Amino acid sequence: MAEEPATKKQKTEDYVLYYWPGLPGRGEFVRLAFEYSGVPYTENLNPATLIPTLTTPSKSSHPPHFAPPALKLPSGRFISQTGAILNHVAPKLGLAGEKGNKVGKTTGAEWEEAEEERSAINQLVLTCMDLTLEIHDTHHPVAIDKYYEDQLSQAKDRTASFRSLRLPKFFAHFQNVLATNTEKHKNGGTYLIGSTTTTADLALFQVCSTITPSTFARLIKGFVEQVVDGLLFAFPKRVAALKATGDYDNVFELYERVKNEKGIKEYIASGRRQKYANGIWRHYEELDGDE
Amino acid sequence: MAEEPATKKQKTEDYVLYYWPGLPGRGEFVRLAFEYSGVPYTENLNPATLIPTLTTPSKSSHPPHFAPPALKLPSGRFISQTGAILNHVAPKLGLAGEKGNKVGKTTGAEWEEAEEERSAINQLVLTCMDLTLEIHDTHHPVAIDKYYEDQLSQAKDRTASFRSLRLPKFFAHFQNVLATNTEKHKNGGTYLIGSTTTTADLALFQVCSTITPSTFARLIKGFVEQVVDGLLFAFPKRVAALKATGDYDNVFELYERVKNEKGIKEYIASGRRQKYANGIWRHYEELDGDE
Repeated sequence: MAEEPATKKQKTEDYVLYYWPGLPGRGEFVRLAFEYSGVPYTENLNPATLIPTLTTPSKSSHPPHFAPPALKLPSGRFISQTGAILNHVAPKLGLAGEKGNKVGKTTGAEWEEAEEERSAINQLVLTCMDLTLEIHDTHHPVAIDKYYEDQLSQAKDRTASFRSLRLPKFFAHFQNVLATNTEKHKNGGTYLIGSTTTTADLALFQVCSTITPSTFARLIKGFVEQVVDGLLFAFPKRVAALKATGDYDNVFELYERVKNEKGIKEYIASGRRQKYANGIWRHYEELDGDE
Repeated sequence: MAEEPATKKQKTEDYVLYYWPGLPGRGEFVRLAFEYSGVPYTENLNPATLIPTLTTPSKSSHPPHFAPPALKLPSGRFISQTGAILNHVAPKLGLAGEKGNKVGKTTGAEWEEAEEERSAINQLVLTCMDLTLEIHDTHHPVAIDKYYEDQLSQAKDRTASFRSLRLPKFFAHFQNVLATNTEKHKNGGTYLIGSTTTTADLALFQVCSTITPSTFARLIKGFVEQVVDGLLFAFPKRVAALKATGDYDNVFELYERVKNEKGIKEYIASGRRQKYANGIWRHYEELDGDE
């Protein structure tokens, strides 16, 4: 598929996610947006053709791509970089906020207002992506081309700093965003922006999923057993300790809310959500701890 | 300044960059966009009020911000995350590509086409920001709260991998983007997207500036002496070796082109461009090398 020059912008009518098979990875942020919104998408997870396709403009449009995930748009154009993909599709999927969803339908002052809400969401998504990279680097602080086992002592050093300094800083930030959102409970939920689900909520949910421990999962009433059993979590002890402080309650509320939303709930229950493997998010007992 | 609730969206008429004083850092990506376009902006570089301002929605609008840089918009809203800022202002500054600059002025199919070009630029900017973070982590692979000297051996390990594996991968990517852009020489220059300067060009220029060595600078005919003398560069030997291969000629062409563009040339000559200090980009002799 997609062998035709994508620059011709053929109407293929659907979205196709190009990613690695066998792990959720950064592709999962894109999947959640489609699963939540109910807009159809398909996946191309062929590891043999993935990189050749994404680095060849005749196969995946110009500009070529640094790394997956990439999303083929209905026009035939491909967009990569998770944050760029989510910012692009958010208004099309109704995930750019009440005002932000209006971009493309308005011009002038109303467009300005819509763009500002959309950019605020983009800002929060990019912070989730920064956190994702920091989580990755806890187990690969030295070189991505070397085994975890060959950088174990450095991983322990980096992870100690991540647990004590960085993770609480990110949690405090998102707690601040939620606590100061005066509209967050208008619809009875917990929202980062306004009172509708956005790509920012889904991205924070995904990050929380991955740093969410089995310990934490047990603390959450009604957490889907299938997920608890199926996932490897990265920092069970540290996240449980942070939750126990009560300082980040809104973050955990959002996680709980998104998990039970229409679209996401069905997606988790479907078994289509991939299990954590040797990707960004790994659970190594020796890298976790209470503090 | 900016003590009034920004959510009221007062018409303040100008853009204000909030950042740390004394170093170019990620703020420099935002500065280059304004300097190139000639759109006026001012700066607020007060280190005592920076974080309290950016984390307090009554001072810097909702959502609050994880870290600087943040840009106050004419409406009074603040946007942070370098990639989100650049994506937001690109069409307003004429830096979103020939088609991309039309967002906000059109709807429907023409808007779709404009958004796709803008997102392609956003994608490239985000890859530049990823490279920036990797450069930072070469000297701080373990913990940002510890001194470089206390993580020297890990920094050497990480940097060896960065030089041999990551830097060539990023360079090869941008070379590929440039080499396959069939329109790049339409205006006689070297452009990542189409044949106009975009925020992607400026971001790649900035990253090249910072990894560009004194050795490399000497190789470039006409490189502004003032800049050569004023900057500390991170990887002189490695970049010189990569340049010598000839494999990344378009990347160096773009760097050369942007440096001499109206707006940027005057900015560099003005002396307002800040010197590299103990920020993201540092030059440590022991971390550099040919290979």
